Amino acid sequence: MAFRAAVAGASGYAGGEVLRLLLAHPEIEIGALTGGSNAGTRLGELQPHLRPLADRVLEPTTSETLAGHDVVFLGLPHGQSAAVAEQLGPDVLVVDCGADFRLHDAADWEKFYGSPHAGTWPYGLPELPGHRAALKGSKRIAVPGCYPTASTLALFPAYAAGLVEDEAVVVAASGTSGAGKAPKPHLLGSEVMGSVSPYGVGGVHRHTPEITQNLSAVAGERVSVSFTPTLVPMARGILATCSAKAKPGVTAEQLRAAYESAYGSEPFVHLLPEGQWPATASVLGSNNALVQVVLDETAGRVVAISAIDNLTKGTAGGAVQSMNIALGLPEELGLPQTGVAP
Amino acid sequence: MAFRAAVAGASGYAGGEVLRLLLAHPEIEIGALTGGSNAGTRLGELQPHLRPLADRVLEPTTSETLAGHDVVFLGLPHGQSAAVAEQLGPDVLVVDCGADFRLHDAADWEKFYGSPHAGTWPYGLPELPGHRAALKGSKRIAVPGCYPTASTLALFPAYAAGLVEDEAVVVAASGTSGAGKAPKPHLLGSEVMGSVSPYGVGGVHRHTPEITQNLSAVAGERVSVSFTPTLVPMARGILATCSAKAKPGVTAEQLRAAYESAYGSEPFVHLLPEGQWPATASVLGSNNALVQVVLDETAGRVVAISAIDNLTKGTAGGAVQSMNIALGLPEELGLPQTGVAP
Amino acid sequence: MAFRAAVAGASGYAGGEVLRLLLAHPEIEIGALTGGSNAGTRLGELQPHLRPLADRVLEPTTSETLAGHDVVFLGLPHGQSAAVAEQLGPDVLVVDCGADFRLHDAADWEKFYGSPHAGTWPYGLPELPGHRAALKGSKRIAVPGCYPTASTLALFPAYAAGLVEDEAVVVAASGTSGAGKAPKPHLLGSEVMGSVSPYGVGGVHRHTPEITQNLSAVAGERVSVSFTPTLVPMARGILATCSAKAKPGVTAEQLRAAYESAYGSEPFVHLLPEGQWPATASVLGSNNALVQVVLDETAGRVVAISAIDNLTKGTAGGAVQSMNIALGLPEELGLPQTGVAP
Amino acid sequence: MAFRAAVAGASGYAGGEVLRLLLAHPEIEIGALTGGSNAGTRLGELQPHLRPLADRVLEPTTSETLAGHDVVFLGLPHGQSAAVAEQLGPDVLVVDCGADFRLHDAADWEKFYGSPHAGTWPYGLPELPGHRAALKGSKRIAVPGCYPTASTLALFPAYAAGLVEDEAVVVAASGTSGAGKAPKPHLLGSEVMGSVSPYGVGGVHRHTPEITQNLSAVAGERVSVSFTPTLVPMARGILATCSAKAKPGVTAEQLRAAYESAYGSEPFVHLLPEGQWPATASVLGSNNALVQVVLDETAGRVVAISAIDNLTKGTAGGAVQSMNIALGLPEELGLPQTGVAP
Repeated sequence: MAFRAAVAGASGYAGGEVLRLLLAHPEIEIGALTGGSNAGTRLGELQPHLRPLADRVLEPTTSETLAGHDVVFLGLPHGQSAAVAEQLGPDVLVVDCGADFRLHDAADWEKFYGSPHAGTWPYGLPELPGHRAALKGSKRIAVPGCYPTASTLALFPAYAAGLVEDEAVVVAASGTSGAGKAPKPHLLGSEVMGSVSPYGVGGVHRHTPEITQNLSAVAGERVSVSFTPTLVPMARGILATCSAKAKPGVTAEQLRAAYESAYGSEPFVHLLPEGQWPATASVLGSNNALVQVVLDETAGRVVAISAIDNLTKGTAGGAVQSMNIALGLPEELGLPQTGVAP
Repeated sequence: MAFRAAVAGASGYAGGEVLRLLLAHPEIEIGALTGGSNAGTRLGELQPHLRPLADRVLEPTTSETLAGHDVVFLGLPHGQSAAVAEQLGPDVLVVDCGADFRLHDAADWEKFYGSPHAGTWPYGLPELPGHRAALKGSKRIAVPGCYPTASTLALFPAYAAGLVEDEAVVVAASGTSGAGKAPKPHLLGSEVMGSVSPYGVGGVHRHTPEITQNLSAVAGERVSVSFTPTLVPMARGILATCSAKAKPGVTAEQLRAAYESAYGSEPFVHLLPEGQWPATASVLGSNNALVQVVLDETAGRVVAISAIDNLTKGTAGGAVQSMNIALGLPEELGLPQTGVAP
Repeated sequence: MAFRAAVAGASGYAGGEVLRLLLAHPEIEIGALTGGSNAGTRLGELQPHLRPLADRVLEPTTSETLAGHDVVFLGLPHGQSAAVAEQLGPDVLVVDCGADFRLHDAADWEKFYGSPHAGTWPYGLPELPGHRAALKGSKRIAVPGCYPTASTLALFPAYAAGLVEDEAVVVAASGTSGAGKAPKPHLLGSEVMGSVSPYGVGGVHRHTPEITQNLSAVAGERVSVSFTPTLVPMARGILATCSAKAKPGVTAEQLRAAYESAYGSEPFVHLLPEGQWPATASVLGSNNALVQVVLDETAGRVVAISAIDNLTKGTAGGAVQSMNIALGLPEELGLPQTGVAP
Repeated sequence: MAFRAAVAGASGYAGGEVLRLLLAHPEIEIGALTGGSNAGTRLGELQPHLRPLADRVLEPTTSETLAGHDVVFLGLPHGQSAAVAEQLGPDVLVVDCGADFRLHDAADWEKFYGSPHAGTWPYGLPELPGHRAALKGSKRIAVPGCYPTASTLALFPAYAAGLVEDEAVVVAASGTSGAGKAPKPHLLGSEVMGSVSPYGVGGVHRHTPEITQNLSAVAGERVSVSFTPTLVPMARGILATCSAKAKPGVTAEQLRAAYESAYGSEPFVHLLPEGQWPATASVLGSNNALVQVVLDETAGRVVAISAIDNLTKGTAGGAVQSMNIALGLPEELGLPQTGVAP
């Protein structure tokens, strides 16, 4: 195997998913696995699904334990990545699954995250125009948020083709793993099973400026985004239901052509045949995004819907896909294109 | 008990929920229970949760079996209610849980349901302006659809107060019971668990014209509605995430005041304290609707969210509430104001 | 209303369910609601499904706040009930939803709970022989554990009739609410959805001696119990699959007769018609227990299965049922005999 | 790729899972995909998670479409495999995921399946003593039932070591995919979510004689099996809770040694460290079986629990594992040893 990778935050959901994917990656050897309060614990207790790593023991997250790797994946709480990255030096590929380096606008960062802006790294959504080039050879990658991945993939072709107005509405349903593994009362199984609940409503969710940044960049003008996330009773998956007013005269044919052009040669993003809509179950465990779009002529809106696995394409899969590009490996290498269903 | 009620379609989810509520209603005696292919079967096999009725046997749905009741609830496939209602005569209160008599516009009906329009009955959403008066003493009630109930309750106060523009976006998540009890592959537990999926996207779902009708009536002008329903992995509940562009100068205070005014004295619709958002688990089994609204100043949109139990407030509870009004009984009589949670 | 009741531990699942039932009870006025760290919080935030109590504020659990009630329900952590009960005095009916006073054998208590035995109170399972008489007029009630309720109701008629050998095997599946509302990693929605997991295997679960006590008392000899609880992906409900070797010569007719005799006139325990098996969905939110039994002639075992709602018949419903008996009220008063399904 | 495989019944859950695994298998080229009523349909509509096969169209199941393959997987209704296998000739490896060739005893077959016995093929549970040798080079494989796989793996080491008495009790919880994709009312999402229900109770489930056959063969005497399957609210996974009376004098050390000896070098069956119990979520999508065992000294019983994915190790994974052996390939080739969690 050509490269050696460490995972900081190996006991969490993002770290666990990175490891699941790396275990199937033919060019990556898994090196150090580190954790915070879980250091010293067998991975078999924390991530019992990762059988081949069951006997590995978590080390503390330090510059020593992370040294000597070609790639380091960071699955750390917001605000901690910059310090770790600095210690790793400029020649190590650092892939940050956290938010620290996603936003260009320091004011946006400070408003939504409440801490000083650490900077901006190449953004790991290769499907966006120009992003593959920026990722190639990069030693730093900011993995997109799960909602921004789903929302951007659903809507950007319509903005890139200039078919929709500059106000987007996104309502997304997410499985609970997106909220992480830290136990909180509202995330208990007893609370989430049988319930759908919104949160971060009214423009206050941290992924709002990220979606705005992505769509605005593609549109070439500021796109206003109304974003509402909801929690649904499943562990994995995001369905993003997105819409925007169609520009006058836009036709269904133009719309479809724009999406076919955007995704016709993408390995992981698939425009479904007309009439078939994406379901999250179809992408579970895979790095795929399924997309469908329609023009509602009565309401005058373009409705675009995407389904991803929030932990795979929405986090760890996007991370590995971008890592492949950065390392000069084939983009699909080691990434599942088949979901687990039913 | 003052009144005797029959339920046609007692083996389905709507019929079963009507029965659950009538069993707790102090003024209703449960008369004939009828079914189609299930006639002759013990209710204990079909609806094992309705213990007090376990030994009742379903009769066929005929004018004879339904005769001699003060109230007849219809839980029949679309298009069958008119014929049954005609046979029952003008003095029997007929409560149609189906769609046949909901729409005013015959062209809308024909476009969305593909059959001749049967007419329009008083619409059983008492919270809408003027609707209580129309229901009082009526012998015919069209029970609203579940999505229209949730969406209308979320948005109408904003339209009634003239605070939002005439284009609404509704994305609703529904439990699977809304799709009924007829077995279809995509409704199998194996398919719906762990999955969120959209359907009827792009303005083609039958509840679109009904939501449009409700909001337009309140707004006093045609409101365009983009409606996307999604299926989520739970049996009961609807969360409707609704938004519309705020009119220039509208303030958060005006918005809150409009909702407080609309729902301050409603027995079943509750505006939550600021900062608390509705979850479907909080209304399971109850006739409550929980509502919250916020002004997203950055996006310039009003976001209003409601949670109901699709079978209770969204169907059978709305039906019984309207029946109470029609019969001159206290509106809350026999209706649960407490949900079952967790 | 004739009686005033306080609930200590009103923010938990047991306390919330007691309140849900008391809200529908015609002879109980709800008095003080108390909590530990949640004192000072609106109940509407903690138990949003209890709409009629949304504006009540939790008080601290003290002898002052609990004073002046006819009935006090305790939903406290193990070991705290004795001290509170003492302060309340001998004339107040104290209903302990905890385990403190369930076991007769002090050694068993100390082995399984690790603290000194507080004593034994009348056991709130009225269906057991002689228990109604003991509950009548009592001022102290020990509410049974949820698994013991389900297991005992499934098996005791076979033991009472002397039809089975003295070794029972119980495998029970429980919804997650039985594990309470304190957030723990293994109870996160992400962990429990899509998973069945055993715990407390091999005779170490605290409900083992309680089931043993119940069956042994009925059998008139020590019954050995192999008990395995499992957690399943739902919030509410217990299915107890129980079996024991049939005594030589026992017939299916004898078996059925024993169960018919035990449950023929019970208001809440229902032996299903032959061939129909209980499902937990059929009892959700109700105080019912559904039971079925069969003789497996090839394996020579009696298999008896019961379904209850762990929070209703398994905790709060059993508590209110026993309270009714203790207070001289009709046993069924205020208790739901209809489940919420689907 | 060395071999070409066809899948008959490619639209069902077993067929879909076989395809998911074959897509990752380095030595198998996927040939004909056939179906019954679904012939002519794009696989992308029927199995949307199998993206790389989305544009393949199902052919009818005939001797022509299945001709020209090295391996043919059969996922057909019971009773149809013999006729198809005959047409394929003796040189094609036929792997039957159905039940037709599992049982040795014709009388058992006829009693439980109601049709003439078709014969017995080498049984695809390589972990059983002597089975690898029988599978090597075989041209016919009978894939075990999902419950028998889980139950046998949990219990056989105790029987092989002579540590338990000849009466076993098995209570198993299964996800709904085990019941297949044909829509039936009791399998609707609305019915199964929030519910646990038993079926086939009392020795009548078809997997009873298969479990009996496996354990008896290992024990060298007839083992009586009391088997109760239950349906739980998840799509995939089986947890089998199994127990048998310990023989006099058996110690915990002997027990553990027996399981360590049985599974110490197995690639897919893992005895967990003491104190850790298997959960189905840990094996989702993988070919692993997790096993734990304990001696309950009070009850005098050995309790052994296993978790598998019913579609992977319980069906398609077991099939591919056995195929690998039959074809002389490395046993683990192409089979996932990592689950998808959470």
